[in-house]
This record gives sequence, C-alpha cells and structure tokens, in this order.
Amino acid sequence: MRDNVINLRAVLPNGDVVKTGSRARKSAAGYDLARLIIGSEGTLGVITEVTLRLQKLPSHSVVAMCNFKTIKDAADVAIATMLSGIQVSRVELLDEVQIKAINMANGKNLPEVPTLMFEFIGTEAYALEQTLLVQKIATEHHGSDFVFVEEPDAKAELWKIRKEALWAGFAMKPDHEAMITDVCVPLSRLAECISTSKRLLDASPLTCLVIAHAGDGNFHTIILFDPSQEDQRKEAERLNHFMVHTALSMEGTCTGEHGVGTGKMKYLEKELGIESLRTMKRIKAALDPNNIMNPGKLIPPHVCI
Amino acid sequence: MRDNVINLRAVLPNGDVVKTGSRARKSAAGYDLARLIIGSEGTLGVITEVTLRLQKLPSHSVVAMCNFKTIKDAADVAIATMLSGIQVSRVELLDEVQIKAINMANGKNLPEVPTLMFEFIGTEAYALEQTLLVQKIATEHHGSDFVFVEEPDAKAELWKIRKEALWAGFAMKPDHEAMITDVCVPLSRLAECISTSKRLLDASPLTCLVIAHAGDGNFHTIILFDPSQEDQRKEAERLNHFMVHTALSMEGTCTGEHGVGTGKMKYLEKELGIESLRTMKRIKAALDPNNIMNPGKLIPPHVCI
Repeated sequence: MRDNVINLRAVLPNGDVVKTGSRARKSAAGYDLARLIIGSEGTLGVITEVTLRLQKLPSHSVVAMCNFKTIKDAADVAIATMLSGIQVSRVELLDEVQIKAINMANGKNLPEVPTLMFEFIGTEAYALEQTLLVQKIATEHHGSDFVFVEEPDAKAELWKIRKEALWAGFAMKPDHEAMITDVCVPLSRLAECISTSKRLLDASPLTCLVIAHAGDGNFHTIILFDPSQEDQRKEAERLNHFMVHTALSMEGTCTGEHGVGTGKMKYLEKELGIESLRTMKRIKAALDPNNIMNPGKLIPPHVCI
Repeated sequence: MRDNVINLRAVLPNGDVVKTGSRARKSAAGYDLARLIIGSEGTLGVITEVTLRLQKLPSHSVVAMCNFKTIKDAADVAIATMLSGIQVSRVELLDEVQIKAINMANGKNLPEVPTLMFEFIGTEAYALEQTLLVQKIATEHHGSDFVFVEEPDAKAELWKIRKEALWAGFAMKPDHEAMITDVCVPLSRLAECISTSKRLLDASPLTCLVIAHAGDGNFHTIILFDPSQEDQRKEAERLNHFMVHTALSMEGTCTGEHGVGTGKMKYLEKELGIESLRTMKRIKAALDPNNIMNPGKLIPPHVCI
C-alpha cells in the first residue's frame, strides 16, 4: 500500500498542517515526508488526507489452488514463481492446521495439507498463460490437485477460503486468545524460515495456524492460547520469540506489516541497531518535543539521544 | 528506482552508521529512514551501501515506435495506454525538434514529427498482445507508421534513437549550454501541460527539445542557449519558470527526478507549503545541528524553525 501513496496531509504535534507532495506520480522535491509519516504509528502526526495512485482493474483474472505434501514444497513453489518473473497478483500459503480450521468452520472437505492459492491478472490470454506456467512449477515440486477457475462466482467462492481463514482460526477455540506473529524474511529464505518455525509449532501443545503472504516472504502464525493459563501465554510468547529470532538471523524483520506498537519494541535494536533507533528518536524529538503524539510507542524507552 | 531500495547503510553527520532496514521485501519496523535519506541530496548523510530488490529479466520484449501529427496526440496515447492497465515497461515521447537533432547527429532520416517509443515485456505472447493493443490505441489517436521489432539487434538499434537523444540535442549547438527542465504532472494533465509548454517553446528564439518519460507524466525540455549572451540565459530561465509554474498549477512538481539542489529551492514553498519546508529543516537540524552535510542545498535559506 505505501508505494501507492502519492501525497499525504498531516497535522504535526506543533499544529502545522503539512502537505508532503504534489499529485505527480514521482517527485524529487525535498525529503520524502510521506514515507516518514507512513508507518510512524501516530508518533509524528495525524494523517488527515491521503492521495492514492489508482490502478486499473484488470480485464481478466484467474484464481488457482494447489496442494502439497510439505510446507517446504509449497513455499518453494511460491519462491520459484516469484523468481520466474511471473507477475502473480496474489500468492497465499495456508498450512494444514489452517485448512482444518476452514473445514471445521465452513463445513468444507478440503484436503488438510499445505495449500497455495494464487491470483493471476492481465488480459485473458496472459492470465491463463501465467496459470499454466505456475501449474508446471507446482508439478515440479510435488504439487497435486491443481485447480483454477475463471468464472466470477467460482473465483469469489475459492477466495472465500482465504478471506475467512482468520475467523475460522479464531473459531477453533472460541474461548482462547490469539497471538499473531508477523515476521518477513528475504524471499529466498522463506521455505527455510517456515519449515524451521513449523517444526517448533508442531511440537508445541498450543494450536498454531500458519498463513503466509508467500510472495512477499511474509508469514503469520495464529497462536491460540487460554488467557487464564499463564503457562499457555508464556508458551505463546516463547513461540513468537523463536520465530522473530529465526527471521532476524535470516536478515528478516520482526514485523512485515503489522507494526511495532509496544510489543515489538524489544526486537528493534537487534534488527536495526541502536544508531537507527537513536536517529528515529532524534526525529521524534525534533517534531514532537513535548512527546504528545502516541507517547511510549515504536521507539524503545531505553534509547537515548 | 527508490521503490527498489530495500535497505541503506549511511553515515550520519554525528558519525553514527545507520542501517535502515533488513533484507525483507517489506517491513513495518519503525520510521522509514531509507526513504528519508533517498533524495535528501547528501544533506542528511552519506550513503555507503544499498540493498536493491532484483527483478528477473523478462523472457521477451518488443520495442515499438509510432509517429503523430501533434504532441498532444502523442501524449494522449501515452495517457490512454497507461490508463488501459497495460503494463508498458517504457513509454518515451520525443518532439519533432528532438527527432531532428537525432537525424542530424546520426545521419538518420526519421520523420521529424512527435514520436512515441515503447517497450513491452513479459512472455512472448503477452509482449506481442500488449503491442497490438497499443497499436490500436495509437491508431485511434491519429498515429501513423507504427512499427515494432522483436529481434535483439533491431531492438537495440531502435532504442539507440532514444538513448542518444540527449547527446544529439547537445550536438545541435556545440558552443551552447543546456538548461534542462524536469517537471512532472499527474498523468491526466500531461497532454495539456506539454501542449501549453510547447506553444511557448515554439515561439521562443531559443532551440528547445522536448523528451518525456510520458508514462510517469514527467518531461524534460533541453533549452539550448549561448552562455555569453545574457538575454539568452534570461530567456531560458523565463521558459523554465513558465513550465514549472504551469506544472505547479496542475498539481505537479518542479522536479520529477533530478532533485532540488540550489536551482529549484525557490519553487518548493509554492509546491509544498512553508510548513513542509519547516518540517524538513527541523529534521535537518536534528540530524545535522552543525550543518556540515551539503549545507545550503535543498532547503531554501529563508525557512526558519
């Protein structure tokens, strides 16, 4: 999304209303204040207006699904697809626990195995051409039951599986809370990172579901735990810590898209170094000297300038 | 290019060496220091390392060229192409003066009329499909002599026309200097902006060549003037001012890609507002309190914090 933001209007802590750019698609006019404010989690100002770059709706799309014996095979297909240069519009990975949750919630009978879902867009011929190229890649990595649909209702029905995944996950244990992780690693390390994480998750007494925006190297684990059981919360935290440190050891990030808030502050120094955090704090102090905008968020309290 | 930067390492004015991110494709881990430093023109730090997102070379490409009676028709085709959702890889517009320069410099015999050049990429079938779609759009806007080539040597030969355009322009008046403009407007305003500018340029005694990255709404004018003639320099500046103000009146920018330096500082307040410039100066002062990094550039001297 952030790449589609052309311009922002924001109210800064001192009351200044800033406009960060023009409506041109590209600009080299000064510091990129839009990108600085995006992802600053309310600590630098309040965004009041956003100018987005619009994209033409594709004339055609295809939705496809494929099953795999192992999550590594599924991740390898996502990697190979992205590296092939195919401009896949969406590639989502769901592990067998996630598929089981969908079966339970929606009365479906999907094979409970690691599954990839794709969307291909473009002209009719090109969307189909991409689909067949990816089908070939999937076959090379032990994929089975590759299906694809082009008719609007059938596409909506297939994507519904993905769209309802989170709620299906929550419904597995309605009295539990969910801790949701958000690591992102270089695409080339995704299969290794997911496989390593999955071994730990499978060995845990907690129910853990994996869902990945595999084309970005980003994956979430929904860790379900009973909030009244302190040992379960601790176990959830242990799993989360392990996955973050695994991602960081692979030059990844503790948060691909969900942000820092207070929960991820403790990982930032390892990921970015104290010098980066000091620089962020200097910028925060320059724009918000009285610390009135979302204080206590994003920049760890131990960082001094 | 800036969207392909995943991570930077930079030395800040206080000696801190900062790493702005991980190697993950996306991240929400703190302020986007990479984007802040990119385009800061050396005023915030010295970049010492850049991590780029690599793109797979396309398996096939097509290069095409088409002539037009008016520059407005050519710009309209660029706009219609982009709005059609066709993912054209390059679309470049050269006016009749630019084509004349290329003919003179390279002994060519191209029709001296506004000309569009395209590159389409993808699979063989898709690149060709896009080419034919754009050929149809060009025909609807009075385009003529649409040619396209797929063979590597022929493609290189055709792109050579575009690649040598700048040098061909300089060669028109070897003893002259060139003032190069760099405005960028919302794509929907490009035809109007170029047409308005072109009427002024054609009426000027100076030789002016127009070359546009038309898919971005960005165009350059090479204004040739004799540096020993003060009235010529003033005329070049008058043309430049006019084009910048025309672009700003269309919600565009004074610089699409070349940057601010000292020459464009005077336009920033009109484009961004004094509040944005004050914010930039606050960031500059926070990171470089002694003003040792490229002082006097980018932020206009009248801006106070």
